[in-house]
Formats: sequence, structure tokens, C-alpha cells
Amino acid sequence: MTSLKNDTFIKALLKQPVAYTPVWMMRQAGRYLPEYRQVREQAGSFLNLCTNPELACEVTLQPLRRFDFDAAILFSDILTIPDAMGLGLYFTEGEGPKFHHPLRTAADVEKLPIPDPELELSYVMDAVRLIRKNLAGSVPLIGFSGSPWTLATYMVEGGSSKSFHRVKGLMYEQPKVMHALLDKLAQSVASYLNAQIAAGAQAVMLFDTWGGVLSTEDYAEFSLYYAKQIRSLLNTNVDGQQIPTILFSKGCGQWLEAMTDAGYDALGLDWQTDIANARARVGHQVALQGNMDPIALYAQPDIITEKVKTILHKYGQGSGHVFNLGHGILPDINPEHVKAMVDAVHQYSPAYHAQV
Amino acid sequence: MTSLKNDTFIKALLKQPVAYTPVWMMRQAGRYLPEYRQVREQAGSFLNLCTNPELACEVTLQPLRRFDFDAAILFSDILTIPDAMGLGLYFTEGEGPKFHHPLRTAADVEKLPIPDPELELSYVMDAVRLIRKNLAGSVPLIGFSGSPWTLATYMVEGGSSKSFHRVKGLMYEQPKVMHALLDKLAQSVASYLNAQIAAGAQAVMLFDTWGGVLSTEDYAEFSLYYAKQIRSLLNTNVDGQQIPTILFSKGCGQWLEAMTDAGYDALGLDWQTDIANARARVGHQVALQGNMDPIALYAQPDIITEKVKTILHKYGQGSGHVFNLGHGILPDINPEHVKAMVDAVHQYSPAYHAQV
Repeated sequence: MTSLKNDTFIKALLKQPVAYTPVWMMRQAGRYLPEYRQVREQAGSFLNLCTNPELACEVTLQPLRRFDFDAAILFSDILTIPDAMGLGLYFTEGEGPKFHHPLRTAADVEKLPIPDPELELSYVMDAVRLIRKNLAGSVPLIGFSGSPWTLATYMVEGGSSKSFHRVKGLMYEQPKVMHALLDKLAQSVASYLNAQIAAGAQAVMLFDTWGGVLSTEDYAEFSLYYAKQIRSLLNTNVDGQQIPTILFSKGCGQWLEAMTDAGYDALGLDWQTDIANARARVGHQVALQGNMDPIALYAQPDIITEKVKTILHKYGQGSGHVFNLGHGILPDINPEHVKAMVDAVHQYSPAYHAQV
Repeated sequence: MTSLKNDTFIKALLKQPVAYTPVWMMRQAGRYLPEYRQVREQAGSFLNLCTNPELACEVTLQPLRRFDFDAAILFSDILTIPDAMGLGLYFTEGEGPKFHHPLRTAADVEKLPIPDPELELSYVMDAVRLIRKNLAGSVPLIGFSGSPWTLATYMVEGGSSKSFHRVKGLMYEQPKVMHALLDKLAQSVASYLNAQIAAGAQAVMLFDTWGGVLSTEDYAEFSLYYAKQIRSLLNTNVDGQQIPTILFSKGCGQWLEAMTDAGYDALGLDWQTDIANARARVGHQVALQGNMDPIALYAQPDIITEKVKTILHKYGQGSGHVFNLGHGILPDINPEHVKAMVDAVHQYSPAYHAQV
């Protein structure tokens, strides 16, 4: 394993002393960057971009050329696993992801294969290897996957949803079928993340984007349970190096205590959750990642700086905080505003860390 | 004031002993009922339906003819106030409410009038009076309004939003202008709800549908503060009868303790919040309304019955619970499923109340 020139991100996740608070940004490789839009156009389609390791590597590295991010994140889509299972992922302009063959019946679930990541998802592993090579140890690379519940929402709905009535219908009416689906997904996600780690991912993150649409008991049974199962299957020790794990959820701020049971090193917070309150509740068990409102990036740089200072102050003294947004950056943000955020984190965070 | 034949709803909100748990349903007068769709068609448009007291009265009463609901709720739209302020409310098929003249500048806010409810919103007051007359004391009538923050989101965005970037932009960049707008809205809402009470509303509910898109501190400053201001301006004593007040929010389960400070008799819970946990946290201060997942109504009646029993069991013994969904019913629900819910509440809840 190449030793990292900048391992602040890894250390913060493991709550080891750091000189400043590391920062990266969900969807940092994305449409707000003109150079991304250029490569996206060159690729012809979003899927072409995801499945071409050279292009995926290029857009992964783009934000690091502009901003002093402390981590890179693999450019990919959260729906690569269902696609590898044969559901036929496609994208329509303005409507988001869709599947040609959504799941509807117990027989559909029964037939689902568990993909071999080095076969059906080799383009992702090739991208991880290529990115690691190109990063040349500058900053760590984060691998990721959607959570079983979040993947299941798209697979059963056939795409995005507002009400989630099909997937919840399956959950309410045929809980055993839903569990069979989630179990296959948990196995697939664990194997996918382990393959990413083997290919070079130095931290992994599970995106449970839609956990927050569930009731408290359904969240525990149909979402968190599988996040925990995945965690127990991850190979997080590579050549003596620990691979930190992050569990991100949206709308789950009520459930932080329960979430720590899943065994991840860090919890990703949405912007609604107060990070001071979160640290008081679970900060002795896990590191915290987040959590500026992505919409604050529309504001002028001086206001962004103030928002950054507030969040740093709320987290307070010591390691265990990775600065991020509370959700992905929006496509029409001015890149200069991102620079204001990153620079503010680096300028004002050393005061919260003892000299190391 | 006509004495009520069924005052279970009022008593439960005031935590007085009741024989069973009362139940009503957000959006109970709505598209899931064929008789509603017929009147809606007759009215020609949704706005015509809202502004015609006879038709509004008719659709308010429709669900009570089918189901043993323990309360009626005024049929109206949450955006009547901004419309009365001159923003020009209209509806487009499938896209929800829009305004011809959204707010964009400090000057726009400056110019906003505070409507006189008995003048510009007389159609609402006429509907309240007519419904009260037709209810003839059978069950209480709930009046309502959108919260200042929730109204502001539509007024600044010009309609529905996913990211709320315009209204948050105003909040982040020009907090004083946002406060001026929210202050005018709070005065307008208080005066509107007081007029509904004077016209005959026997309980009032404030819908803070979009409070949950804010950060913890922004929620306190830009949403909850004005809910509290409104509460302090309400005339909740009519001829010696107390008018109970309900504050409903979505995505605010983290903030229940703070919400009790606003002084409402009850908090409406979304379905993500665990009602047992909510009662443990704030049940000594307020009654709780909710909170079945609206999507559970797609399930078969026996499953709905189980969900009802779970929520009754979670709330547990004693008064202070009004059964409801955690958000409005969806338009394609089978009315028979609503009957299953209502009947289950009435069948299984007496066990949780001492004989009175």
C-alpha cells in the first residue's frame, strides 16, 4: 500500500489526532464543474461515463485539481449493482435513473443473481485501480455503494419515487420477499465493497439515501439491519492498514444511537441534524461527517465562510470530524463558492485541533 | 356554542379522559373518494372548489358519511393567505400550486398587505359557518393554516420545490427580509386562524409541512419562532370552551422537545417518528397526533389493522393520543382500506382507556 502524503481524512475517521479538519464533498465530481460537463458530453451518456474507467478516473480527479480536498471519491453510480443483476439501468433526461426490468414478484427476487464484482462490475474495479495509480498517494480514495434498502427502492419502483408505494407495498404485504431481496443485496454490496477495497479503495461509504422514508421500526428491520450485516462482512484490514467505514443516511437524525450499533467508524449527517447534538449523543462511539446545507453554497462566499465556522464550532475541539455537505452538491453551484467552503475549513479548523 | 355529541377528539387533545382513541385523517376530504372527484369535476377547478363555500362544505362532510371519523377538517388550501396577499394562486395539472407573482425582493415583501380574513378570505369563513351548521354538533370542526415558513417556501419559490434554493437563498443572503416576510405571515396566519375560530372552528392546526428541510438552528429561527408567535396571538377561549391547538411538522422528529416550547396542546407526528419514543420525550407536556405511514393504506385490511394495533400499543395507556396518518392520504387509496383503519382504531383503542 502506497503511504499517503495526506492521510488527514483517514485519521479523522479513526479519531486519531489531526492538524486540521479534513474536507471533501458529496458529488464533488459532478455537473457544477465545466470540465465535468465537457467529459460527460464526450462520453455521450452518463452510463458511458460510469462504465469507462479512463473517463471515470478523469472526472474523479477533476475536483482535486481545483480544490484542496482531503479525499477523492470514486466516480460511479449507486445503481451499478442492480444493473449487474440484470435490471437494465438507463437514464432519461430530467427523470433520473430507471430500470427496464423492475422487480415485482417473489419469482423476480428468486431469480436475481449475486454479481461477481470482478466480472460484471470489472469496469468499477478498473476505475478504482486507475484512480489509485493516478492519485499517486496524494489523498485517499473513497469507494462506495448504495445500501440494500436504497437500492431496493429503485429496483422495485423502477426508478425514483416520491411516495415509495411499490417498495413499501412489497415490504408491508410480503415482508419475507423483501427480506430475501435485501439479503441478496447485502451479500452483493459486501462483495462489491470488498472488491473495491481489494482494488485500492482506502475508505468505504454506504449511502442509505432513502432510509429516512421509513418508520422507526421499519428502518431498523429493513435498512439498518442490512447495513450492519454488510459491515460484519467487510475486510477492513489491508496489509495492516485499517479501511475506515462510513454510514450515510438522510432523514435519520432521530436514530443516530441505533445507527452506531451497525459498527461503522463514522456516521454521515444530513444538514438537518445538529452536529453538536449528534456529537453529544454518539461522538464517543463514532466520528461524524458533514453537514452543511448544500443550498448554503448558493450564498455569497462570506456567508459560506460563516456557515463553515458555525459547523466547526458546533463540532468543537478534537479529532473525529470530516467536513462535508449534508447531501450532494447541486449542479448549478458556482465552483468559486466551493473554493470558499474548502478554504474556510482549512483556515479555521486548526484552532480546534491541538498541535500534532 | 352547540354542545358536541362527540367531543372525544377535543378531550384527547386536552388530555382529558376518553373512552377510546379518536381518529381523523389528513386530507380526508380528497381525491381518494369518488364523490369528491364528482364535486371537483362539477366545480371545474380546484380553486373554484376551495372558494365556493357550499361545495367546500359538501366535500368536508363527505368522508363523515362514509367513516366514523371523530373530527371534520375544513376543506381548503394552505395557500389561501398568499393568494389573498395578491400573489395570484393557480394550479397546473400534475405540477401543484403556483403563483403568478412570486416574491423575489425586499420591495416585494414591503408591499405585501396583511389580509383581513373577513374581507379577502370571507369564502373560507363562510365555509366554516356553513360546515358548523351542517355538522349540527356531531363532531368538532378543525380549522387550519399553513405555517409562515411553509407559506414562504411557496411564495418565494413560486410553487413547489425540491431544493428550496430560492427561499433558502433569501434566508441565507437577506435574513432580515426573510424575517420581515415571516413576521407579516405570522400576523396574517394568527388573524386568519382567529377568524376561523370566531366563525366556528373548534380546534386549529398549523401545518409546517416544510419545516423539516431546515437545519436545526434555522428551524428554530425561521420556522418554530413564528409558530410560537402565532400561538401567543390565538384566541383559544370561546364562551368558556377551550379551542385546542395542534402543530404539525414533517421531518422534525429530532426537535420535539423544542417544539413543545411553542405552546400548542398537541404535536402532529410524521410516520418516521416513533410515537412511543415521542411520548416518553414530550408526552407529559403535549398530546400527540399520528402517525401511521400513509403508504400502509395500500396494504390489505388485515395488515392495516395490525399497523393500527402497533401504534395504539406504542402510545399505550391513557388519553392524549389522536390517531391519524403521518401525512395526507394519497389519491389512489381504496376507501375500504380507510374504513379498516378507522374501525381498527375504534375496536382496539378502548383497551387503552380506563372506563369513563
